[in-house]
Amino acid sequence: MQISSQELGERLNQNPSQIRQDIRCFGGFGRQGYGYNVAALKEHIGKMLGLDEPHPMIIIGAGSIGSAVARYPSFIREGFATVAMFDRDENKVGMAIGDLTVRHTDELEEYLAAHKVDIVVLAVPAQGAQEMLDRLSRAGVKSVWNFAPLDLVHSEEMLVINVHLSDSLHILSYKMSHRGEVPQ
Amino acid sequence: MQISSQELGERLNQNPSQIRQDIRCFGGFGRQGYGYNVAALKEHIGKMLGLDEPHPMIIIGAGSIGSAVARYPSFIREGFATVAMFDRDENKVGMAIGDLTVRHTDELEEYLAAHKVDIVVLAVPAQGAQEMLDRLSRAGVKSVWNFAPLDLVHSEEMLVINVHLSDSLHILSYKMSHRGEVPQ
Repeated sequence: MQISSQELGERLNQNPSQIRQDIRCFGGFGRQGYGYNVAALKEHIGKMLGLDEPHPMIIIGAGSIGSAVARYPSFIREGFATVAMFDRDENKVGMAIGDLTVRHTDELEEYLAAHKVDIVVLAVPAQGAQEMLDRLSRAGVKSVWNFAPLDLVHSEEMLVINVHLSDSLHILSYKMSHRGEVPQ
Repeated sequence: MQISSQELGERLNQNPSQIRQDIRCFGGFGRQGYGYNVAALKEHIGKMLGLDEPHPMIIIGAGSIGSAVARYPSFIREGFATVAMFDRDENKVGMAIGDLTVRHTDELEEYLAAHKVDIVVLAVPAQGAQEMLDRLSRAGVKSVWNFAPLDLVHSEEMLVINVHLSDSLHILSYKMSHRGEVPQ
């Protein structure tokens, strides 16, 4: 199946010429007048995003955010499967979340030494998050997806991507305040 | 207390001249060589973002994401207080989440007619999300913060901000795949 930049533009609500330019950056895709092969384009974008291989994740923090990530259907479909969850709260240890049983954070280093873990999801409160990141760093963790609402200090070898839910809520709030105004 | 664009730049990891330019867009802020008054700057940015007045929210969907939003401490601090939660699952109706008791979605329209609700948080599965959005639209809801993983169709009068957690995870995955490469 083929798709034109025109149709992609309509579906994504983007300018078709911008789409052609972006796809051109991927290198050698599409021929003038033929559009793009959907399967090949999808595979290529997936490879670029690192979605062509599974990325086992563990989650630290078995609260609402940790549970939401563990259950998010599209993550599993894309190869971001949660293989273990940890919490330091004795009341949560042993709890079942989906197929997983929450482990105590005391077992963290031992687990990391024995299993392939690509990504650590940090879903702990702001207080204690930096301490946990330092601990992960000492255990050799290289990639962290951080939901704790603060910017963490880390070495250059460590990749840390912050999710700040507030940013998105502030955009909504901003647009609500300026509703009806003509954009400048 | 005053702060210079230099110090703001260091704290935000941004170029000080970019910061001066951005703040200049707010209009009449700071004097050459004096820096910015922190309290006045904070108040001004808060007003621009609509954070100077409370925005009562209700949450549809009492699963992990809905619970996480209801409990997120900084939302409450910034005036985004959750005043009611709804679910269509009889097993969740009556459940306590923080100070709230989950209501049945059957009561939604009645609740909206009787209470000031600025924002509706849509934390339901993809399936059923569009139907719920249409229902909210008919009930006069104007601002929706959508966690359902799909782009919803809505009228121009309705503001819908989508949270796609996957985007942020894909950025992490992309950077993991290209780690160590020289940025172009």
